[in-house]
Amino acid sequence: MLRFTTAGESHGPGLISILEGVPAGLPLRAEDVDRELRRRQQGYGRGRRMQIEQDAIELLSGVRAGQALGSPIAMLIRNRDWRSWQEIMDPAPRDGDPAARRRAVTRPRPGHADFVGMLKYDRQDARDILERASARETTARVAAGAICRRLLEEIGVSIGSHLVHLGGIDAETPAELPSDLNAASDASPLRTLDSAAERQMVELIDRTKRAGDTLGGICEVVCRGLPLGLGSHVSWDRKLDGRLAGALMSIPAVKGVEIGMGFGAARVPGSAVHDELGADSQRPRAGHVARATNRAGGLEGGMTSGEPLMVRVAMKPISTLMKPLGTIDVITGEPAAATAERSDVTAVPAMGVIAEAMVAFVMADAVVEKFGGDSLHELQRNMDGYLSQVAARTDW
Amino acid sequence: MLRFTTAGESHGPGLISILEGVPAGLPLRAEDVDRELRRRQQGYGRGRRMQIEQDAIELLSGVRAGQALGSPIAMLIRNRDWRSWQEIMDPAPRDGDPAARRRAVTRPRPGHADFVGMLKYDRQDARDILERASARETTARVAAGAICRRLLEEIGVSIGSHLVHLGGIDAETPAELPSDLNAASDASPLRTLDSAAERQMVELIDRTKRAGDTLGGICEVVCRGLPLGLGSHVSWDRKLDGRLAGALMSIPAVKGVEIGMGFGAARVPGSAVHDELGADSQRPRAGHVARATNRAGGLEGGMTSGEPLMVRVAMKPISTLMKPLGTIDVITGEPAAATAERSDVTAVPAMGVIAEAMVAFVMADAVVEKFGGDSLHELQRNMDGYLSQVAARTDW
Amino acid sequence: MLRFTTAGESHGPGLISILEGVPAGLPLRAEDVDRELRRRQQGYGRGRRMQIEQDAIELLSGVRAGQALGSPIAMLIRNRDWRSWQEIMDPAPRDGDPAARRRAVTRPRPGHADFVGMLKYDRQDARDILERASARETTARVAAGAICRRLLEEIGVSIGSHLVHLGGIDAETPAELPSDLNAASDASPLRTLDSAAERQMVELIDRTKRAGDTLGGICEVVCRGLPLGLGSHVSWDRKLDGRLAGALMSIPAVKGVEIGMGFGAARVPGSAVHDELGADSQRPRAGHVARATNRAGGLEGGMTSGEPLMVRVAMKPISTLMKPLGTIDVITGEPAAATAERSDVTAVPAMGVIAEAMVAFVMADAVVEKFGGDSLHELQRNMDGYLSQVAARTDW
Amino acid sequence: MLRFTTAGESHGPGLISILEGVPAGLPLRAEDVDRELRRRQQGYGRGRRMQIEQDAIELLSGVRAGQALGSPIAMLIRNRDWRSWQEIMDPAPRDGDPAARRRAVTRPRPGHADFVGMLKYDRQDARDILERASARETTARVAAGAICRRLLEEIGVSIGSHLVHLGGIDAETPAELPSDLNAASDASPLRTLDSAAERQMVELIDRTKRAGDTLGGICEVVCRGLPLGLGSHVSWDRKLDGRLAGALMSIPAVKGVEIGMGFGAARVPGSAVHDELGADSQRPRAGHVARATNRAGGLEGGMTSGEPLMVRVAMKPISTLMKPLGTIDVITGEPAAATAERSDVTAVPAMGVIAEAMVAFVMADAVVEKFGGDSLHELQRNMDGYLSQVAARTDW
Repeated sequence: MLRFTTAGESHGPGLISILEGVPAGLPLRAEDVDRELRRRQQGYGRGRRMQIEQDAIELLSGVRAGQALGSPIAMLIRNRDWRSWQEIMDPAPRDGDPAARRRAVTRPRPGHADFVGMLKYDRQDARDILERASARETTARVAAGAICRRLLEEIGVSIGSHLVHLGGIDAETPAELPSDLNAASDASPLRTLDSAAERQMVELIDRTKRAGDTLGGICEVVCRGLPLGLGSHVSWDRKLDGRLAGALMSIPAVKGVEIGMGFGAARVPGSAVHDELGADSQRPRAGHVARATNRAGGLEGGMTSGEPLMVRVAMKPISTLMKPLGTIDVITGEPAAATAERSDVTAVPAMGVIAEAMVAFVMADAVVEKFGGDSLHELQRNMDGYLSQVAARTDW
Repeated sequence: MLRFTTAGESHGPGLISILEGVPAGLPLRAEDVDRELRRRQQGYGRGRRMQIEQDAIELLSGVRAGQALGSPIAMLIRNRDWRSWQEIMDPAPRDGDPAARRRAVTRPRPGHADFVGMLKYDRQDARDILERASARETTARVAAGAICRRLLEEIGVSIGSHLVHLGGIDAETPAELPSDLNAASDASPLRTLDSAAERQMVELIDRTKRAGDTLGGICEVVCRGLPLGLGSHVSWDRKLDGRLAGALMSIPAVKGVEIGMGFGAARVPGSAVHDELGADSQRPRAGHVARATNRAGGLEGGMTSGEPLMVRVAMKPISTLMKPLGTIDVITGEPAAATAERSDVTAVPAMGVIAEAMVAFVMADAVVEKFGGDSLHELQRNMDGYLSQVAARTDW
Repeated sequence: MLRFTTAGESHGPGLISILEGVPAGLPLRAEDVDRELRRRQQGYGRGRRMQIEQDAIELLSGVRAGQALGSPIAMLIRNRDWRSWQEIMDPAPRDGDPAARRRAVTRPRPGHADFVGMLKYDRQDARDILERASARETTARVAAGAICRRLLEEIGVSIGSHLVHLGGIDAETPAELPSDLNAASDASPLRTLDSAAERQMVELIDRTKRAGDTLGGICEVVCRGLPLGLGSHVSWDRKLDGRLAGALMSIPAVKGVEIGMGFGAARVPGSAVHDELGADSQRPRAGHVARATNRAGGLEGGMTSGEPLMVRVAMKPISTLMKPLGTIDVITGEPAAATAERSDVTAVPAMGVIAEAMVAFVMADAVVEKFGGDSLHELQRNMDGYLSQVAARTDW
Repeated sequence: MLRFTTAGESHGPGLISILEGVPAGLPLRAEDVDRELRRRQQGYGRGRRMQIEQDAIELLSGVRAGQALGSPIAMLIRNRDWRSWQEIMDPAPRDGDPAARRRAVTRPRPGHADFVGMLKYDRQDARDILERASARETTARVAAGAICRRLLEEIGVSIGSHLVHLGGIDAETPAELPSDLNAASDASPLRTLDSAAERQMVELIDRTKRAGDTLGGICEVVCRGLPLGLGSHVSWDRKLDGRLAGALMSIPAVKGVEIGMGFGAARVPGSAVHDELGADSQRPRAGHVARATNRAGGLEGGMTSGEPLMVRVAMKPISTLMKPLGTIDVITGEPAAATAERSDVTAVPAMGVIAEAMVAFVMADAVVEKFGGDSLHELQRNMDGYLSQVAARTDW
């Protein structure tokens, strides 16, 4: 079982990510993680902070001489602007008064955790909530996901994503996705494969920025090379569909998740939804049975089908608007303009990278669950044995 | 913490549902559960088995004299047709030969767990998989959900659902939902509030049945009366968005979940998405702050906002078609027509009831998590204390 | 991951045990479980109910034609005296009054859950607590453990136990334990290997029964054939020592657990505690390295060492004394004699069987965790691969 | 639900401890944790490193202006000697060769995780195992426990410990324990309350040090002020006995745990074990019912009884002997003397502090579980309500 835990506030000393359960022997370098952190910081429509951050991990544990040890891998990502925030965010009380705070945030942003969090946790300053509810937390997710990705790469599984919609503009998806999906999508400032749509989106972002507004969108995550039979149908909480959806919907600002045809599958008859099976003359992988279609998005009955996993994730617009929405001051009850602290117009390109990380975690967990193995070598041997078993069964 | 566990095959002796963690003192009768089981069995487009089943629970534990004891509540739902299946499904081996089976299913249905399950679990008979991957398992979910619903009712929370789409036909949602949503939707054979659409859907089902095909659709679940502040923003796996999506996407055949505006939130700017806050002159509930809109669907930052929870769940068409799809025989590798065992055209109306059950579980779990309490009285006292605290904070 | 859940009250309709995560293909018959249930009902010093019960399971799910399916295995053990208790224990309210109960128990037994449970769960009748806090619940544990034992048998692991102490009388342990430990211990009415001590114990039980008192004791559980390397040192909650101790201390009335030398290891220097390693010329098992001693009891650093697992479990005397202890009536606050409902003098022999079940669960879980595998065949192949790897490393 | 996660190797950059689920508003300073870390570093018989370490935390998250925020609290404890170990422990590969290591440890210490760990995780250098299996990891446990202790203090619960046995020498326990147990025990270099035994123990340690040997011992942990009714009897894994034993037996080198009379309860009849109840004329606490004895050690039926929690924990001698035990070289298979890296004679006094931390975690978790509450204020209000309820029930 893989487990991951994150900690850290947006303007505190830093973020921590611990991933536990990684097989020993996995080759791993800090650069493997830093590369993904950089990918998360890309994207047209981000504000100044992305440049400040230049995130990089300090590997605190679980790795030695470039290999995982099997012990928990802890990563620390320092917040580069901590010094300028220290007075506000200091863990230690100031002047003997635990309640003394500076610049209390009392005008909660609609759509954010601010308001509810203040009441639930009984805080007088929305900063006590928003610092953790911030999208900055996803840095720690991407760090853990980067290690999961490394594990998946070793067994031939790749994960990529691309933006398919932004604020009303659809990007066309090519009939066949590029074999190296991220190489293609990362080349675009919006991580989209449709350069015509990209131009429109850039314009829309510029226009929206001028209007002080924000934009949401949709990314598609694709995971290729998965062996069939990860996950299970036997219990509700072992089904991969649910585990994936749970992980993806936990990303801040995500409001929708769909697998394969998703909502589209509700609109057409079964004969246009289910993927017919036919024996594969090519048979590129053990147990592979040809299907002309992959409308299921790679999951059947809560298990991987051997086809690429395809999920789409919808993100609402960022809830901090530079032209602020109406709210109330929680202390006075008076109408007010919501706090406006950050200035990104959209984070949808980054969300794709975060969604990749969550998919990587869920799939790596499913791999470890199915194949066990305390060392990478053992995991691979167990997987090979299984693939041979499946190949023998399907070698008609 | 609430936990629920289900067991049972579709044509085995019966289904078991255990719900654990229910506060002592909750008034509970078998009828409370049976009523929900009946709701699950409604719906135009279901086949003969729905009539056979007439599900009812035997309360095996955890309830005495009409009150929960705090101990695990186990419910047994006998499969009424067990006798006719006993020879095929008997747990005991036949004739000394553990492998002797009758009527082995070897032609897996596209879109079902059959094929992958046979390879993963190394079974020669798809029945070993399909019996558990069956939608029949959701009976046990509805049973557990019915108890969660009882708990929620005691603290003023109601859950209902209605069908909003079937196989290409949208049902219009009234501007204001009926106060007793299920009274209205259950009155419809399709559990929809739009009688014009209903007529079209009935025709579509009849037509589809004649074509040997199946239909999917979309239901909306609405949960009202929730206190604000359930769930949390602090860790990825405590966020209610993720927990809800995970529970809902684990329902068989569900391919998409969205909260509030969902995918629609990706299409418009933030100013048209986020719900502005304004102090409420009416103030019907503690801590209630008026919002003209509820596009967030009742969740902000992973927590309930105090507004109704609104989720939409998309179900693909049933994967057993009477006009079977093409598949292969797993034993011979030859092309074949898929097995066709059951005859429902659509189960979308029932899916709404199942989705209600999953929402009930997640929300009851969140209630117990936040308010603790080993007895209903204690839980209510804790909740009242919290609501007073929130009311004091918002009594400007 | 294996999970097990139990439900059921002592005098309710029955007990339920669900075990989830068992690999498909495990040969399994109801008799495999019933045999263990009978072993639990043995033991000199038990009262009349043991004869009444004659426990046997109904296999409700997860097994077909003598093989596990991989789905949850649910077992129902009916309480044979349910009819005579139905009026008292009926889940349905009587006469429209949910609070109407018969024969309320208001004089809690010292040493039992009665008193605290009534206050915690806010119940007026200790029966609402004691019915679940009863040792009867362990029947469901033994049922789940019996399946785990079957899984372990398939990979060459055996579990047995014997009584080593009863109420002040030590049983001598032979220098070498019998190869079939349970064959030897089950032959004794006290499950002890020391027939001289057995005679004394029988007398003590008779004497204690006449005195209206009860007795505790200590059992040793021995698990042989375990591969080295189950469990882990990497995180506190993955260490097998803790998982075993947690499972064993959760058995009703257990107050102490020790592994290997246990408390004795605190009394002598390290040179008399740690087991020196030497290459084994015989080398009966992969990776086996001879050790002249097994003071560690088969666990080093939270992992199995390849030596037999040895744990000792101490049980306090039964808390229902026929010559009742002093208590108070919870309703009136008056001094009173505690309720005396059952009449066993001691349950230590049965406790050994229950402890075996808990050890079986923990070890089977550790096996599934390490070797993964959805089918028994896969699990065995993975384990064989690992054992070969270990053998190659230790083939000097 | 509280969760805690630790990471870090003994000679890596540092240790990380994350505690999650702490109510917001808990007053908390780094000194609260550092104080406990210092207590862990005390104790006669420790080697040089204790002085080097001078552990102190950096609070990375979850605390602001001296109060917990409700978000995960991450603490970093730097290893002060990291610079001198960096070449050996560097996460980055050296010279392009991932396998290049210095000073490989190949002679595993009997009694340690070394040997099994190398085979299980397929490592060539026991350092890859021993760095994590080290007692150094317990620093992170003490850090998390210190926060739990702060939470418990706020609701009137205190935790202390003292050493009751060392390497064959019993310390006498006074008839009444000091009201501030740790003030008394921490004043002793061995954390014992018996100064005569202390002198003998010091001599024994000196003698044992000269002999190159090591010593184990037993500590008793006492937790006072607990409300009755924490934990539960309803399910095996909710019983506090098991949760405590699991947490304590997971401490490195612990081989035995007992609650209350523990193993002693197996030796006498029930009438000498169970604690009779009598109404309390003093009634110092809500729901308190006088008991002349506390042989149960504060737990009945898996729940706190309102009496002090008393557990005893047995630790084996340290497995690194300066006069090394016989082992084999894992690479060559040749007989060898075990590696001897550290020089403590005994760590039993420190183990008491670690055991306190584990008890603090389990009890704080049980408090949060029962009383819920996102803020300290809410938790206290819920607890007060419960105590009033209990008081009303016992106000005869």
